[in-house]
Amino acid sequence: MQLKLLDKLRAENPVIFNIANFVTVQDVANAVNAIGASPIMSNEVAEAEEIVRMASAVAVNIGCLTKQQINHIKKVEDLARQYNKPIVFDPVAVGAVEYRYKITDKLLWDFHTSIIRGNIGEIAALGGFDWSSKGIDAGSGSGDIDEITAKTAQKYRCTVIASGPTDTISDGKRIAHIHNGSPLFKTHVGSGDMLTSIVTAFTAVADDPFEAAQIGALVFSCAGQLVVKDHPNVGPATFGMYLMDYLYKVKVADIEQIADFD
Amino acid sequence: MQLKLLDKLRAENPVIFNIANFVTVQDVANAVNAIGASPIMSNEVAEAEEIVRMASAVAVNIGCLTKQQINHIKKVEDLARQYNKPIVFDPVAVGAVEYRYKITDKLLWDFHTSIIRGNIGEIAALGGFDWSSKGIDAGSGSGDIDEITAKTAQKYRCTVIASGPTDTISDGKRIAHIHNGSPLFKTHVGSGDMLTSIVTAFTAVADDPFEAAQIGALVFSCAGQLVVKDHPNVGPATFGMYLMDYLYKVKVADIEQIADFD
Amino acid sequence: MQLKLLDKLRAENPVIFNIANFVTVQDVANAVNAIGASPIMSNEVAEAEEIVRMASAVAVNIGCLTKQQINHIKKVEDLARQYNKPIVFDPVAVGAVEYRYKITDKLLWDFHTSIIRGNIGEIAALGGFDWSSKGIDAGSGSGDIDEITAKTAQKYRCTVIASGPTDTISDGKRIAHIHNGSPLFKTHVGSGDMLTSIVTAFTAVADDPFEAAQIGALVFSCAGQLVVKDHPNVGPATFGMYLMDYLYKVKVADIEQIADFD
Repeated sequence: MQLKLLDKLRAENPVIFNIANFVTVQDVANAVNAIGASPIMSNEVAEAEEIVRMASAVAVNIGCLTKQQINHIKKVEDLARQYNKPIVFDPVAVGAVEYRYKITDKLLWDFHTSIIRGNIGEIAALGGFDWSSKGIDAGSGSGDIDEITAKTAQKYRCTVIASGPTDTISDGKRIAHIHNGSPLFKTHVGSGDMLTSIVTAFTAVADDPFEAAQIGALVFSCAGQLVVKDHPNVGPATFGMYLMDYLYKVKVADIEQIADFD
Repeated sequence: MQLKLLDKLRAENPVIFNIANFVTVQDVANAVNAIGASPIMSNEVAEAEEIVRMASAVAVNIGCLTKQQINHIKKVEDLARQYNKPIVFDPVAVGAVEYRYKITDKLLWDFHTSIIRGNIGEIAALGGFDWSSKGIDAGSGSGDIDEITAKTAQKYRCTVIASGPTDTISDGKRIAHIHNGSPLFKTHVGSGDMLTSIVTAFTAVADDPFEAAQIGALVFSCAGQLVVKDHPNVGPATFGMYLMDYLYKVKVADIEQIADFD
Repeated sequence: MQLKLLDKLRAENPVIFNIANFVTVQDVANAVNAIGASPIMSNEVAEAEEIVRMASAVAVNIGCLTKQQINHIKKVEDLARQYNKPIVFDPVAVGAVEYRYKITDKLLWDFHTSIIRGNIGEIAALGGFDWSSKGIDAGSGSGDIDEITAKTAQKYRCTVIASGPTDTISDGKRIAHIHNGSPLFKTHVGSGDMLTSIVTAFTAVADDPFEAAQIGALVFSCAGQLVVKDHPNVGPATFGMYLMDYLYKVKVADIEQIADFD
């Protein structure tokens, strides 16, 4: 894995355009800033072209999807295609809400998405696998996560990250797993949304989406693991706070020491 | 008081649908998650039925009310009636903003609300009592808080929580008081909104709204009191952070040791 | 500088109306509350008059500008003129997004703004100076910051704060500089937005906007500097958290000891 991409990201400080949800937007902006990119948020079609042009990549998060937002997403995704900017998509709750599934499925067919980042319930729903999602959470199921991830990637011809205790990443052919992390990620709402936008930042410096997905997931998981190593008594909110600090200060050498992936 | 409802809540992990305001939504989502429920937010009428069905209860917060949101609230409250899901209502600033009072009063007549949770300025306004609210704050007044709370509960045939240094709770007949807490709650914007959604979570496991109101207010107040006991020098933001940690880790036995109510 | 205005602010606890962006709104509300004022947020034209009347001043932040919001801003700014309430304007990203520049320039001509608070890239764009802004960040340029600040103030007949490592403040005639602060402000998204609303709070107690701008910027910068003095190892998020605590607890005497301005 090209861990030096972290240094490249910080040196280049790319602008990352986030179509964010209002629940986690502040965490997302701070995480993008902390890792070394420059976040910008916008909800207005009239400035979409300007913002897509200045951005290196676009993160689309449907955590609080509205009809109005769908038009905005379509416009932005069309512009991203036109200006050749990668799109990373976070299909929040598509496993639990049929309305969101239908919108997302259509967007994923109509526009080329570089990476989809969701929990296994969301990824399984997109891939057409049986899984019991629960609201915004992964829920439970018995499918093979490698297969679900790879098949969903093949279906939409993109890279897929199914995040969880182990992050499973596939571009339809290759499979990678990130074993780093901490159970505390699940206790902090917004962890997944932050990961989505951090992976988006890495698409600005990586050679391909599969590489961006791996490095993004690895850096994020290791930052959290280092928090817990240094502060073993953290709860959900102290974890969330230190996570942001560690995204800012984590060095390539720190990650090399604990990186656990295949 | 049925303190074991806290364990039941954590075991059942009910989905709680929040119509939230954009100021405090992240705190609300994290608080619902930390106490052991699963938060979901939505602003789109088209997915309202799906989300009401999957949720065990609905929290409605008008902290940044818009006309568009009123239609959404009406639709959701109608669906909550249809699917028999309790509604908890947070009437932010109805004591200071006549527009919000009128909308809220009509909603409370048109749809059955299980619990109203506000500061005393908001509760007094709804009950028709004289009180000088100040923006989102309780302001000042000289009325009898027990009487205001009970009469407002009688008016809307629901349970009312007037939160403050002491939380006063009434279903129109019974009165309860929670004396736990800390003055720091007032210094952290979003404390009240978090309480509203935590009480909503308890309606999913309690036998009746009056019980849910009491246990929710008690757990929340005690978590804050324990923060200050363990971290006596906290300011508004460190208090807010530790509060989230303590909502996650507080045990029934911890609460039993300090619970102070009648 | 009238440092005792901090005590006056806390004694009077004025209501501050914020037209906020959804990225930083929670930080802004908490910062206004922590410094000793009472924040209220609203996005609804129908309640604009009530809220302008109860507020002592209005902060307008275009960090996530939409067409719908422009109508709201116009209505609120017209009411602020009518009720003689000062307006403080935060022109987020006008240096990078032409759409926002055009809207902002027109608003600044059509309504009297007391104070504009932005980074140097934003202030230079408004003043018509050459500068390379980068998204929401200041970017880089070689102009004279004193001249840019003073000329922009003259252009819009108001006070301008160009914040950065040194905050430069001008009303078109006078120039002041605040040298306090910390590089960590830049690592926490929302620092600028918090400053804007804190300055807005001081317009409620200061004799003129130039004084409010100076005291607001000084108190904010010193609070951050004291955080780093007491907690030298803070990262972006721990800094942001302690900043809120220090806004709450900082005393006039603490500021006097480290104040560095001319």
